[in-house]
Amino acid sequence: MTLPSDLDIARAATLKPLTEIATEAGLVPDAIIPYGHHVAKVPDASLSEEAKKTRGKYVVVTAVTPTPLGEGKTTTAVGLAQGLQKIGTRATLALRQPSMGPTFGIKGGAAGGGYSQVVPMEDLNLHLTGDFHAVTAAHNLLAAMIDNHLHHGNELGIDPRAISWPRVLDINDRSLRNVVIGLGARGDGVTRQSSFDITSASEVMVILSLASDLKDLRERLGRIVIGYTYDGKPVTAEDLKAAGSMAVILRQAIDPNLLQTTENTPVLIHAGPFGNIATGNSSVVADRIGIHMGEVLLTEAGFGADMGAERFFNVKCRASGLAPDAAVLVVTVRALKTHSGRFKVVPGKPLPEEMLAENVDDVRAGAANLIKHIEIVRSFGVAPVVALNVFPTDHDAELAEIERIAREAGAEVARSTHVAQGGEGAVELAKALMSALENFEVDFTPLYGDDEPLETKIEKIATEVYGADGVDFAPAAKRELAKFTGLGYGKLPIVMAKTHLSLSADPKLLGAPTGWRLPVRQVRLAAGAGYIYAICGDMRTMPGLSSHPAAERIDLDSNGEIVGLS
Amino acid sequence: MTLPSDLDIARAATLKPLTEIATEAGLVPDAIIPYGHHVAKVPDASLSEEAKKTRGKYVVVTAVTPTPLGEGKTTTAVGLAQGLQKIGTRATLALRQPSMGPTFGIKGGAAGGGYSQVVPMEDLNLHLTGDFHAVTAAHNLLAAMIDNHLHHGNELGIDPRAISWPRVLDINDRSLRNVVIGLGARGDGVTRQSSFDITSASEVMVILSLASDLKDLRERLGRIVIGYTYDGKPVTAEDLKAAGSMAVILRQAIDPNLLQTTENTPVLIHAGPFGNIATGNSSVVADRIGIHMGEVLLTEAGFGADMGAERFFNVKCRASGLAPDAAVLVVTVRALKTHSGRFKVVPGKPLPEEMLAENVDDVRAGAANLIKHIEIVRSFGVAPVVALNVFPTDHDAELAEIERIAREAGAEVARSTHVAQGGEGAVELAKALMSALENFEVDFTPLYGDDEPLETKIEKIATEVYGADGVDFAPAAKRELAKFTGLGYGKLPIVMAKTHLSLSADPKLLGAPTGWRLPVRQVRLAAGAGYIYAICGDMRTMPGLSSHPAAERIDLDSNGEIVGLS
Repeated sequence: MTLPSDLDIARAATLKPLTEIATEAGLVPDAIIPYGHHVAKVPDASLSEEAKKTRGKYVVVTAVTPTPLGEGKTTTAVGLAQGLQKIGTRATLALRQPSMGPTFGIKGGAAGGGYSQVVPMEDLNLHLTGDFHAVTAAHNLLAAMIDNHLHHGNELGIDPRAISWPRVLDINDRSLRNVVIGLGARGDGVTRQSSFDITSASEVMVILSLASDLKDLRERLGRIVIGYTYDGKPVTAEDLKAAGSMAVILRQAIDPNLLQTTENTPVLIHAGPFGNIATGNSSVVADRIGIHMGEVLLTEAGFGADMGAERFFNVKCRASGLAPDAAVLVVTVRALKTHSGRFKVVPGKPLPEEMLAENVDDVRAGAANLIKHIEIVRSFGVAPVVALNVFPTDHDAELAEIERIAREAGAEVARSTHVAQGGEGAVELAKALMSALENFEVDFTPLYGDDEPLETKIEKIATEVYGADGVDFAPAAKRELAKFTGLGYGKLPIVMAKTHLSLSADPKLLGAPTGWRLPVRQVRLAAGAGYIYAICGDMRTMPGLSSHPAAERIDLDSNGEIVGLS
Repeated sequence: MTLPSDLDIARAATLKPLTEIATEAGLVPDAIIPYGHHVAKVPDASLSEEAKKTRGKYVVVTAVTPTPLGEGKTTTAVGLAQGLQKIGTRATLALRQPSMGPTFGIKGGAAGGGYSQVVPMEDLNLHLTGDFHAVTAAHNLLAAMIDNHLHHGNELGIDPRAISWPRVLDINDRSLRNVVIGLGARGDGVTRQSSFDITSASEVMVILSLASDLKDLRERLGRIVIGYTYDGKPVTAEDLKAAGSMAVILRQAIDPNLLQTTENTPVLIHAGPFGNIATGNSSVVADRIGIHMGEVLLTEAGFGADMGAERFFNVKCRASGLAPDAAVLVVTVRALKTHSGRFKVVPGKPLPEEMLAENVDDVRAGAANLIKHIEIVRSFGVAPVVALNVFPTDHDAELAEIERIAREAGAEVARSTHVAQGGEGAVELAKALMSALENFEVDFTPLYGDDEPLETKIEKIATEVYGADGVDFAPAAKRELAKFTGLGYGKLPIVMAKTHLSLSADPKLLGAPTGWRLPVRQVRLAAGAGYIYAICGDMRTMPGLSSHPAAERIDLDSNGEIVGLS
């Protein structure tokens, strides 16, 4: 059985009027703001009085440690939302907005797959309602105002060598990673080295994802620290009088975007902070609205449970005040086989022949990764549910072994075939989630308190979440942590910037590595977003394009329809 | 009598549902695409069959040579559209979209003024429907693909020193005028000097404004020349396989945006190419739709009749195939007094005392500029109508003198007080326009034919439009013109990049200077837009911010409403 292409399935889907979807989800249909016929902005004022009184279950969708194959987390989140709908449970899904950079780079589009997609996929993968563009514009206005301040006499005494605010573009453009700006004549500004990040790595993007409303957004923007004065004082966006204009630019971006699945389940798409150096979670605003839109709100967190979900529990939920009830852990047979370390998997190449053969032992050899992620979820006091994303080449004995392992580790588990069958294929998973929500004794507990020292917070994440023996702080990192504490930023939570390809900081260590220490090379302050981030390894904040990027294949056909955006 | 602020007037306006405005303008209301409640995209398919059969009069709104005071051209265009409506004539107005850069720089917003504004002004001045952002993204994708091509082996043999494609941002940021990119390690691209322009200076913006539809847009994007190979061959966006993705990014931007005046007249806002180095005109697509939306389509061209209107006649109308019927020339008493050369006017400072006193002679001394602009309009065979934008401090004798001079030069003329009175104040002007359209024998004739040599085209504009004695081509300019002709670009029309502050290339020469020659320093190719541009003087393509830009004052108030944007 061959499935039609994602694009063909998406185009064949029958979309429901958004006003109808909004009404069913407890929104006042006239209060949502149309952007085209199939996308709408949902201001929080559009929640009906009735809806505000109810509160759905709050479920984060996460995964085992990602492999080059992809575990289908977004697809499973979409499928599960559809599956819940099939069993008569009103569900809403909250996802990050895809970045345009990778769309024209490797990916060529991201919106689920098969019969579990978010539509219209063309809008989702391109501008949508312009929120990313607004982030880019607000971010770069602040950058321009910094350099303008230097140019017009530098009244605040900003040390040009101590400016950490880059510029951003929503594009993969390695040539902009390191630049010298302000060349030319006297009137062309102050010369200094600087850099460009991709928009999803912007602190403004994280602020958009963590702010609870427009007022909070405005205040967080004001707290952004762009660098230091010659005498070491932090300089904020407020000092530069930039935060008001930045908030004005983001005035509409603060509202999440309503789309639907191919089976008409409501989907809130909002914000898209990077998963490796930022939070990798969809927005607080979307979740605060979505939790009143039905019986279950699914919200996706980037990468594995050590990455996006850990930040979801410790950073996002701290900001939102919402307590989660369950975590869905997506796993595949091929992921666990890869985590066995027995196969060399190369992205874009066919799977090794021997990996497709039935071999329960290979699955077992990689299972430590799954077990560790279940433990991580359990340690936060929420119900773990393993979603077994089934591929046509999987063998029943292998799937059964994963089910056995998951149950033994204390999780509910179910197979899901949503890619081939849509919500119908996710009915068992939906039932497993509802059973877990009913039976598990939820007691959500973040890993650390605000008042613990910054070093302790980092050590707790490393040892209790990642399984490290301890943390090795570089001297500079220690100094910076002391400085941040001295400046009054000691109560902030932590975002760990580490590879997503391993529970450790070494992308080559698969499974659930033990007997290692986490090196923290550098720490940085994101005062507006409201966290300190600790850098463990080389983190890319501006991707490059491959020798033949997706952009070469994407085009319009003779009817003006998009091709190549799958 | 003091007028309320622009923002207060705009907010007090009663907006009509756009579907109603669309219906009255012969559009199928269900075919327009809402972007929020008061902005809609108007695909050309939304014209009703009935509307397609009618064709309104086509009128360009231009002005005398601008002074630091501003002649109120946009405001007059809005007022005239309202005035036409008052006398029972169905009118549509086509305007360029304001750029966000200057909004946060000097201007703080541009949407007409007083009782003649386009609303909602907040949308107009900020993202609107994201068309500028789409231009930025498409432009920068091509830039990234150029540098990516260099990085991955430079198969096409592009000479890095011969790349003329910059990057763009919709911001005033002088620090980006001259940059070095591709610094860092081996994996961070090829090091070279480059630059950033403001988005309105992008060739993609001009392409958006000149393309007749999505197919034409796609083809023009493919024809963009980004530079040359080591052996001197032009390299196009098609060669780099970038044009398809660029068109996909601009797929929605090709449709104009429907807004309304404070008196509910339909306004199409679309594209915003720079007035000094690009065409400075709103889009062909908007005009091709707008001309079927009523009895009169007003379309605004940037700066004086020597600048925007000359390009309107010679470049835009050539691209659209639409023949104009009339040109409205906006003039003020203060502009002509300034053109007398007797007063030193400084922007932002109060007018000199003696300039406000009644002095008909001062007006007469500056009138040569008005007469010259009337001649320019007449030379293209369309009806000249002088719009006398009246200020409260004007004296009747001065106004009467301008009326006399305009009539003597063969133009219809009327006073207009639309700022204080809205459409009611522009009724006489509306009547003058309708009378001119009825009585003037229109015979639209562009200045030059496609087949005339490029040098001749430039010479004709300099002598017959500007009043120069001739053109002095720099040797490099001559060589480039010969090269362009050799490469097959000899049939393209010309855009003159010169100061807008004088009919000459010297911004200090007011009135209608004679006895001068036009220096052409450099010529450049805009193969995608479809013209050659000749550079006469220093042209800025990336503005800077002032020491206290508008961005410092713009903010949200406690209700989340925008302040400082007007």
